[in-house]
Amino acid sequence: MTFSVAQAAKDAKLAARDTAKLTDKQKADALLAIADEINHSESNILEANHKDLQQGEQNGLSAAMLDRLKLDSARLQAIANAVREIAAQPDPVGSTSGSRKLPSGIEVAKMRIPLGVITMVYESRPNVTIDAAALCFKAGNAVILRGGKEALHSNLALASCIHRAFAQQQIPAAAVTVIPDPDRAIMNELLTLSEDIDLIIPRGGEGLIRFVTENSRIPVIQHFKGVCHLFADAAADLEKAIAILENGKTQRTGVCNALETLLVHKDIASSFMPMVAELFTKHGVKVHACEQSKAYLPAADLATEEDWHAEYLALEIAVKMVNDFEDAVEHIANYGSGHTEVIVTQDISRAKRFVREINSSVVMVNASSRFSDGGELGLGAEIGISTSKLHAYGPMGAESLTTEKFVVQGDGEIRS
Amino acid sequence: MTFSVAQAAKDAKLAARDTAKLTDKQKADALLAIADEINHSESNILEANHKDLQQGEQNGLSAAMLDRLKLDSARLQAIANAVREIAAQPDPVGSTSGSRKLPSGIEVAKMRIPLGVITMVYESRPNVTIDAAALCFKAGNAVILRGGKEALHSNLALASCIHRAFAQQQIPAAAVTVIPDPDRAIMNELLTLSEDIDLIIPRGGEGLIRFVTENSRIPVIQHFKGVCHLFADAAADLEKAIAILENGKTQRTGVCNALETLLVHKDIASSFMPMVAELFTKHGVKVHACEQSKAYLPAADLATEEDWHAEYLALEIAVKMVNDFEDAVEHIANYGSGHTEVIVTQDISRAKRFVREINSSVVMVNASSRFSDGGELGLGAEIGISTSKLHAYGPMGAESLTTEKFVVQGDGEIRS
Repeated sequence: MTFSVAQAAKDAKLAARDTAKLTDKQKADALLAIADEINHSESNILEANHKDLQQGEQNGLSAAMLDRLKLDSARLQAIANAVREIAAQPDPVGSTSGSRKLPSGIEVAKMRIPLGVITMVYESRPNVTIDAAALCFKAGNAVILRGGKEALHSNLALASCIHRAFAQQQIPAAAVTVIPDPDRAIMNELLTLSEDIDLIIPRGGEGLIRFVTENSRIPVIQHFKGVCHLFADAAADLEKAIAILENGKTQRTGVCNALETLLVHKDIASSFMPMVAELFTKHGVKVHACEQSKAYLPAADLATEEDWHAEYLALEIAVKMVNDFEDAVEHIANYGSGHTEVIVTQDISRAKRFVREINSSVVMVNASSRFSDGGELGLGAEIGISTSKLHAYGPMGAESLTTEKFVVQGDGEIRS
Repeated sequence: MTFSVAQAAKDAKLAARDTAKLTDKQKADALLAIADEINHSESNILEANHKDLQQGEQNGLSAAMLDRLKLDSARLQAIANAVREIAAQPDPVGSTSGSRKLPSGIEVAKMRIPLGVITMVYESRPNVTIDAAALCFKAGNAVILRGGKEALHSNLALASCIHRAFAQQQIPAAAVTVIPDPDRAIMNELLTLSEDIDLIIPRGGEGLIRFVTENSRIPVIQHFKGVCHLFADAAADLEKAIAILENGKTQRTGVCNALETLLVHKDIASSFMPMVAELFTKHGVKVHACEQSKAYLPAADLATEEDWHAEYLALEIAVKMVNDFEDAVEHIANYGSGHTEVIVTQDISRAKRFVREINSSVVMVNASSRFSDGGELGLGAEIGISTSKLHAYGPMGAESLTTEKFVVQGDGEIRS
């Protein structure tokens, strides 16, 4: 029997009618059952994962790719625990807000509802299968998961945990579908099913995201890249600036909320730049510096236009000296990716202006860019980070997987 | 000199940095200046409109199209007054909400910001040029307007009012661009400019909306059609039901919030259907009825599958008798267009279930579907109605032309 993605999408749409009506208790029970199934099925899942790893080695996957693909006891426990945390989060669905009585006599409010059917397209990490399924389901949606072909056995083993849990809780299996066939033609068809699918979230490299964006007839949430800036203002507390720079560039480098560009106000260069040089030397950070800042950073390359656009994801940074606040804002407007920008300053007016004038999805005053994720910003688990402004902007938690409808209560009112 | 739409989009993006920073007072002053310019330029605008009307007659436009295209003194006054109302609405930009202090010590809130650059693609009504420009600008955006070629002279005359007002108020002209060339190739190019344009809103017939949706690389807000249902429940107050039916079907027929399908609970058929039959006879409403309801509506055609999907936009309606509440919900789930659905009932539990289970953008209890527009729902002026769930769902006012960014205030916090 061949798999029909069109049928799967129709089934998901029907299942979404049911998941939209579930109570928080029903959803939490199902999620806890999934977590338990993951714990009970450890040996099955690891066996399936072992197959994926063997095939991956045969196909010459890089060590980094194999590491992303690999599951072990500890990683599975972390996955199960993440599901338990999602179960405990508040239910984003059903709350009503902004109730108003209007002159016509009707009462209008907005009620939060699920989006419907969400599709995730992702690469090799099997944990995304469970994270995405749990978060979409928590928000009352059905979900279709199209993971990388490298992780297929692992993903199917995880899917059967979900389906066993759903069977126990009388939840339709079509509420979570893992596409069992890695054929590219199926993915291409998936992207056209706009009658049944409400949203596509691609997660992975820029190539995958561009492919999905350019081929989808369904709305897509995009996260292209994180070129995060730190601006050390003339009124910066230099100790704070160094701590935030160190944390942002060196704590973890392969993440989208790491710093990629440092902007330094020229008035503090003589005191601040030697501290910066020392920090970079200590951590072995490779530097691409503008002509002015290069005077303080003798080991640096001269920065090119590409460096201002670069997401290094490595111990590497671009450094630019700016003449004033406006210069810094202008640089970020030209080169920022809409992710996260930080000002370090003790000057309250400039902090305010930075917050007002920088329209990236996360704007920070005197805090590390590394806080820019769903958990650290208090959203609970995160499904992704949107760097486009439609629907959601910035880290997306369960609430970003819902929308609002208008609810009107009347007593026979008609329009005159 | 030929018009470059790519350059226009780049200019709009730069202008959007300025419009995002304007205070409410600056925006209101500019809007009032636009309204004054419209009043002062009446003879110029009507002359330009006269050219469009003459060309339209030569090109054989229908009387309805010519009427949509036509401006006169009263219509211009209404357009100017609408701008003054938008000027007086609250500024959706800059407000902060949901401030929380998190365990790490950082404070997180969300601040409302403009989307950036919005493009409207519309057909022959010249008033859209001013309405859309005013509403997008009120929300701090730059806007690119691509109206129908039939209205080009009128639209350019209105654009020069805007630009004279902007010149007086030191606002960049590129904050509002009316595309001066109706060439289809320019529109096609426009739909690809995803680096500079944040949102496309098509307004017009289903053909236009499908064309834009299928060809755009930029997120699109869609409003396909309004197949609005009225469900007269077993516990309906029949007088209210008749009044809401009459208002929804007959007050204005060519609008998307008019009723298209009546669902009647079988338990009230014998008392309610004769009232319905009398109402339809009185207004000359053409009826497409299911077999069961046809017994009460001898003049009706037998409804076909198409009738359940139909948006008649005329004195025409589909009528179906349902066995129970679940039947009604199922019918709406299968045939609804995500616009507006109404239940008439005195039963509080069924009203609650209807509100919970129907996920159209506007769900009403005991009120007329005709209230389903921005003004009547308290949003002020309306830019359109979204029947897809992403970003905005239902009538869209100025707030729907904004998004929210995260604002983080720290005092040197780093992530451990």
